[in-house]
Amino acid sequence: MIYLDNAASTPVHEKVIEEMVPYFREQYGNPSSIHRHGRFANMAIQNARKRIASLINAHSNEILVTSGGTESNNTAIYGIASQSKGKHIITSSIEHDAILEPCKRLEKEGYMISFLPVDRYGFVDPEDLKKEISSDTCLITIMYANNEVGTIQSIKEMVQIAREKNVIFHTDAVQAVGKIPVDVKELGVDLLSISSHKINGPKGVGALYIRNGVKISPLILGGGQENGLRSGTENVASIVGFGTACELAKNNMSENSIHLKKLTSKLTTRILQEIPATTLNGHPNMRTPNNTHFTFFGINGEDLIIKLDEHKISASTGSACSVKIQKASHVLKAMGFSHEQVTGSLRLTAGITNTEQEIDETVDTLKKVVQELRAVSPYKSKYNF
Amino acid sequence: MIYLDNAASTPVHEKVIEEMVPYFREQYGNPSSIHRHGRFANMAIQNARKRIASLINAHSNEILVTSGGTESNNTAIYGIASQSKGKHIITSSIEHDAILEPCKRLEKEGYMISFLPVDRYGFVDPEDLKKEISSDTCLITIMYANNEVGTIQSIKEMVQIAREKNVIFHTDAVQAVGKIPVDVKELGVDLLSISSHKINGPKGVGALYIRNGVKISPLILGGGQENGLRSGTENVASIVGFGTACELAKNNMSENSIHLKKLTSKLTTRILQEIPATTLNGHPNMRTPNNTHFTFFGINGEDLIIKLDEHKISASTGSACSVKIQKASHVLKAMGFSHEQVTGSLRLTAGITNTEQEIDETVDTLKKVVQELRAVSPYKSKYNF
Repeated sequence: MIYLDNAASTPVHEKVIEEMVPYFREQYGNPSSIHRHGRFANMAIQNARKRIASLINAHSNEILVTSGGTESNNTAIYGIASQSKGKHIITSSIEHDAILEPCKRLEKEGYMISFLPVDRYGFVDPEDLKKEISSDTCLITIMYANNEVGTIQSIKEMVQIAREKNVIFHTDAVQAVGKIPVDVKELGVDLLSISSHKINGPKGVGALYIRNGVKISPLILGGGQENGLRSGTENVASIVGFGTACELAKNNMSENSIHLKKLTSKLTTRILQEIPATTLNGHPNMRTPNNTHFTFFGINGEDLIIKLDEHKISASTGSACSVKIQKASHVLKAMGFSHEQVTGSLRLTAGITNTEQEIDETVDTLKKVVQELRAVSPYKSKYNF
Repeated sequence: MIYLDNAASTPVHEKVIEEMVPYFREQYGNPSSIHRHGRFANMAIQNARKRIASLINAHSNEILVTSGGTESNNTAIYGIASQSKGKHIITSSIEHDAILEPCKRLEKEGYMISFLPVDRYGFVDPEDLKKEISSDTCLITIMYANNEVGTIQSIKEMVQIAREKNVIFHTDAVQAVGKIPVDVKELGVDLLSISSHKINGPKGVGALYIRNGVKISPLILGGGQENGLRSGTENVASIVGFGTACELAKNNMSENSIHLKKLTSKLTTRILQEIPATTLNGHPNMRTPNNTHFTFFGINGEDLIIKLDEHKISASTGSACSVKIQKASHVLKAMGFSHEQVTGSLRLTAGITNTEQEIDETVDTLKKVVQELRAVSPYKSKYNF
């Protein structure tokens, strides 16, 4: 089996599992308890918090642990909106649903939401952002790297613009953190979302970086954990695992990046050379090292995935999170893609456990499978396959 | 080390760990993905959902998986309030903060909240509930079993009253489910919260039972997981573990209950017989089998916990979730306890892994420790220790 859907989720690193298990079996205390079982658990999450913070160059008191990227994004949006006077939020048209849906809910409640356009590579133009800011703007939320095509935005430039206008800036960095260097101090960002299971940590845990001084309201109330910003017994084992995953990602980033780029370069080069009527989508360079995204003209990406799955290769058309709805990618549409370009799309995202041999096998299989599908395609004569 | 704080959190069952680990290591797919990695993960959570449902006699489509009891409670309260015309909520004065705090937030937003009183055992009088319901009441939320003193409410009777008045009834059953039989169909309840880590499952996962037909708004929006009611990549391994914990709790309930009652009976009998000026708090029989709660007059519960901790015994004064705030228990105050009764309180909650020998050791230590503390107590002469 070959797994090339690492943007959807990743295998948990063996060292992460190893460090988590004792927190199920022996150190099972509630971190709020004052006895030693509680203190051990509390020490463990404080230590993990340092590791999470360190990956993005934050202070550990700036890390709010959540149940994942989606909750981090929801907390950022509602948490800022609910305590701001302004009723205008600026975002982009290629955000994850975990940004778009909370924004749309606020829109129904009377907020005005601006969805900035992107160019054919998926870039937001910072000039567009500048023009859109008004005195009523309370939040700008623009993703760091896109989950479908991997495009990396000019976040630093956009943060500068936000700063000048005194507007809070949040970025959903779920696909960027752990893969490329992300330094919150250098960026100057106010809020930043991270997910554990995208970087070989467990699912069900993530974080929201909240710059010291930024005021935010909690989404979930109760016992007052996480400085009152996120109540509920802390998910100790998962937080420990997330911390370990962050430390591994930090320590191995350049090595991992070289490995991932080697795999995705090979994938891209071979596919574009050996399979006709195919394009690479997104920007050739300004993308996350693990991401490739193609259009195979004349066929349906869904069919392609099913065929690949029969050959035990796991791939995706785009976001795993909206697959059930089977809607056409809003990201590709925003990039100006035609229906045909959208339909024939395939995302292959490499992970640290993938090998060059797996990439070769995948391309060999893809060639066969694309040919089979094109042989019965109604577009056969159009493209002269 | 002796752990007698199982109401705060429990060790994860060995079989639970065993069934979780493959979902970190091999079955790491995103359940929304259509390839086999995704399908395996999705099958696993559907299977776990059946096990969770089975423990409370629900249908699996009535189980909303959340990040824990606190999120379940928040979802129930905001999820009903936000789509109801009525602006009145009835709760009790001895709820967990995960109920009280969301209610207090709604109060600030213009809702009216009734906090029903309790008697000296911690019981809400169903007649009080009946009188409090008005045409504006949109939700009743009363806990099943109290986390501090273990008192089990007459939920079925109160649900009957709610039904007659056509008001949604929610119960926070975090301390009851898995310890005593809870059957949602027999109770007729609309919403019910469960937590995994209170029943030897992992932390960071829980559920909200939502009776078929009950409409509720989501707290967290995004990719539309959990039928649109709770977005975010599903926490597969933890959900699997929670499912296993539910199955174990169901299969071993009577056996566990006998074991727990034996331990808590011994604890209660010996303490009341051997340590003077001591009371058992809560009701003698209508309490969860794992709970004991005492007042040792003339001393401070916090001091007692620290002394016990020095002897490697983990105990608590009450809720772990508000320990950091060090406030006097609102539960005991609502039960009409004097300052002195509240101050001297100690909660000892047994778990399935505790032994009779541990109970004996605990009582032996307690006797010594209570004596030491009382020797220097300002109340020494009052009680003639």
